[in-house]
Amino acid sequence: MAQYSAQLDGVLVALADQTRRAVIHRLGRGPASVGELAREFPMALPSFMKHVRTLEANDLIRTVKSGRVRTCTLNRERLALLDDWLAEQRRIWEGRTDRLERFVIDSEEDQQ
Amino acid sequence: MAQYSAQLDGVLVALADQTRRAVIHRLGRGPASVGELAREFPMALPSFMKHVRTLEANDLIRTVKSGRVRTCTLNRERLALLDDWLAEQRRIWEGRTDRLERFVIDSEEDQQ
Repeated sequence: MAQYSAQLDGVLVALADQTRRAVIHRLGRGPASVGELAREFPMALPSFMKHVRTLEANDLIRTVKSGRVRTCTLNRERLALLDDWLAEQRRIWEGRTDRLERFVIDSEEDQQ
Repeated sequence: MAQYSAQLDGVLVALADQTRRAVIHRLGRGPASVGELAREFPMALPSFMKHVRTLEANDLIRTVKSGRVRTCTLNRERLALLDDWLAEQRRIWEGRTDRLERFVIDSEEDQQ
């Protein structure tokens, strides 16, 4: 649980940046080399590489080097951590809404 | 779009903390006073208040003071920002998967 929580912290911080979200978005269409990606973002290569490393360190993307080309691939499963957390919150709200509805129905029946 | 992106940055940073996620989780069951919440978290009140203020500053919770009691309520709509972003990524992957499937089917048909 502590590990899951630390991983989720990392994923959330990694996604809390417009450039890194744009990289995730781009890689959703398929793998790309660091060079191809860097050309799409208006910043110096060292700055861009920092973003790539943050995404990789949090396992949101995976990179493989072949010769001089490093190819980045999205790790969709990692985003599922966030999906799962959101789904868990929804289950709590919906459970609460169900209880509220039942309370209203029960109250109405009591008044009849 | 820039505003949406800045809001999403804030929401993600606010959620990148175990205590703040636990507060969101707790408020999913219904509103609670700051005092009630603080008792559930093993930290000094000033530290806890910082977390409450971060959640409030990013509109994930709303607080109303009545007399000496400040009541916190979850703003579920704010989490929808995150849901929407995740749904958008999924649409891209699924579009890509559809195209891949069509490519495989077309290739198989060509071979027949």
